[in-house]
Amino acid sequence: MILGDGIIDVQENGTKVVLESGKVLDSELIILSIGVRPENKLAADSGLELGERGGIKVNEYLQTSDESIYAMGDAIEVTDYINGQPTMIALAWPANRQAHIVGHHINGRNIAYPGTLGTSIVKVFDLTAATTGNSEKLLRRLGIPYEAVHIHPLSHAGYYPGAEQISLKVIFDIETGKIFGAQAVGKDGVDKRIDVIATAIKGGLSVYDLQELELAYAPPFSSAKDPVNMAGYVASNIVDGTIETVQYYEVDELLQDGAFMIDVRTEKEHADGKIEGSKNIPLDDLRNRLDELPKDETILITCQVGLRGYLASRILQQNGFKVKNLTGGYKTYSIFKNKLQ
Amino acid sequence: MILGDGIIDVQENGTKVVLESGKVLDSELIILSIGVRPENKLAADSGLELGERGGIKVNEYLQTSDESIYAMGDAIEVTDYINGQPTMIALAWPANRQAHIVGHHINGRNIAYPGTLGTSIVKVFDLTAATTGNSEKLLRRLGIPYEAVHIHPLSHAGYYPGAEQISLKVIFDIETGKIFGAQAVGKDGVDKRIDVIATAIKGGLSVYDLQELELAYAPPFSSAKDPVNMAGYVASNIVDGTIETVQYYEVDELLQDGAFMIDVRTEKEHADGKIEGSKNIPLDDLRNRLDELPKDETILITCQVGLRGYLASRILQQNGFKVKNLTGGYKTYSIFKNKLQ
Repeated sequence: MILGDGIIDVQENGTKVVLESGKVLDSELIILSIGVRPENKLAADSGLELGERGGIKVNEYLQTSDESIYAMGDAIEVTDYINGQPTMIALAWPANRQAHIVGHHINGRNIAYPGTLGTSIVKVFDLTAATTGNSEKLLRRLGIPYEAVHIHPLSHAGYYPGAEQISLKVIFDIETGKIFGAQAVGKDGVDKRIDVIATAIKGGLSVYDLQELELAYAPPFSSAKDPVNMAGYVASNIVDGTIETVQYYEVDELLQDGAFMIDVRTEKEHADGKIEGSKNIPLDDLRNRLDELPKDETILITCQVGLRGYLASRILQQNGFKVKNLTGGYKTYSIFKNKLQ
Repeated sequence: MILGDGIIDVQENGTKVVLESGKVLDSELIILSIGVRPENKLAADSGLELGERGGIKVNEYLQTSDESIYAMGDAIEVTDYINGQPTMIALAWPANRQAHIVGHHINGRNIAYPGTLGTSIVKVFDLTAATTGNSEKLLRRLGIPYEAVHIHPLSHAGYYPGAEQISLKVIFDIETGKIFGAQAVGKDGVDKRIDVIATAIKGGLSVYDLQELELAYAPPFSSAKDPVNMAGYVASNIVDGTIETVQYYEVDELLQDGAFMIDVRTEKEHADGKIEGSKNIPLDDLRNRLDELPKDETILITCQVGLRGYLASRILQQNGFKVKNLTGGYKTYSIFKNKLQ
């Protein structure tokens, strides 16, 4: 790995890469991931007001500090639609919308720009990754409390060909159920779920409302409970206090500190890959094995994706145990565990 | 065609169809399209209250006229989410949701059922057709005034492989911009757009808000202005009075009554298929041919899908003409013209 020695030229049809130091590298494939900075020279030279990161400051009609000059697109600072803080979001959708607003304002029709949600998507070979609203990382940096659920439903009914698992995360306010953001990765149906959640955010809908979204169901397109509905059900159970959850990144430390965890998958599933230190009690045996569980501490529960863990949590709660369910189950844990290793 | 002689039996692996009259037909393929009636015998025999069409009447918690008896699914009468009238909607999504509500109510958690939007979808070979909310036909029957726009955008950026034209209709209140419903047909991306609009309706969003939906854009998934955004722009232009439109089913009668119509497509497009009686003035020539147009009557305008017609409308309005643009253009007109013939 070479750090601190930037590329200054690419030569011979991309087979040679020249670095600042003069070093020349052979190359078969070049992937640039270099971020974006605003081209603000003209604005700066003209004395227009800039934000902390160099974005041109604008008001809700996209007028700069000189009201006869408008600015839009990647070069401006916008308001984050979720958290209200200034940010910079270099995407085509906002740029298009901003052009519409500027054109109208020049012609005497005032449409306010309400800030940018930052919905975006990328196709990487056969995988799609998409996001809308704020990430956990951003909310943590801003000190905004949140809760996150992870689910792994199929993109459509499993018995109809071509169904693919979607990994969907929804991030929300644990007090109000307000949706802060969502992220999804999968081979099919990812764009639809993120667009639906982006629309729900624009409509001021909460995680409770996600349950109620009456989405189009036929087996080639979804399930009678769409993944977005499922995320709504799971998140609502947390907001209304039906269940408490634990996150994949909290598990290892809790186990090291002596926490008790059960894995309610089958014996075979547990043998094929498990969270080290978890005790296997299959869901179907749980009611007969309550005497193996501690009454005086919070029991962590996991399964494959979170559903059986939820059922186990409810069974144990009704029997007087304190429990927390691992959101997204072993599937979420193992994805990130592998990433960390 | 045989009417009034129902099928009573299908025999010999589906190759023989027996009718009530005793007549036997040879069959290669049987398609049944016979509707659904509620199975209400038990409810009727028990003296539970039924609706006009036989659906079991329930309150918002899905209790029948005997509050200790619940009913749900295809057999009940529900409230139409858009128009508030009683209706019957036999779909899996509402049945699933109703089961959740009944289960909770029995256990002391009261969640109201807000009525059914009727979002539904069908895949017919490689075409998808989907709908949400109310249709024109229903609104007409109920005497609810509405406006409809038709657009034919691509499912994603045209330069990325696999883009397919979507025919999307959005129906709305011309006074307030409230969305009454939407329908779409196409080979790709139909489910996503209907789900987004269904979500927008649940969020109480108007056609203006459809412009502002920040949907995920990358070339394999959409355009920087998504079809739903485009429908929002087109519909908003009607609500705010920027433009007036004429519908495909109104054109023939208007022309017979002597209306003047221009087609602003190219000469070649016009020669390849046109609305009989329309005069071809390509958009690029329009400003130089204003003297060919009548100042004292409303000019009808068409193009291929409505966009050039919109531009032509604005040009003519600025020059003092009265105009109406054919929503969906020749594309929409010709689809329905062929259907009627």
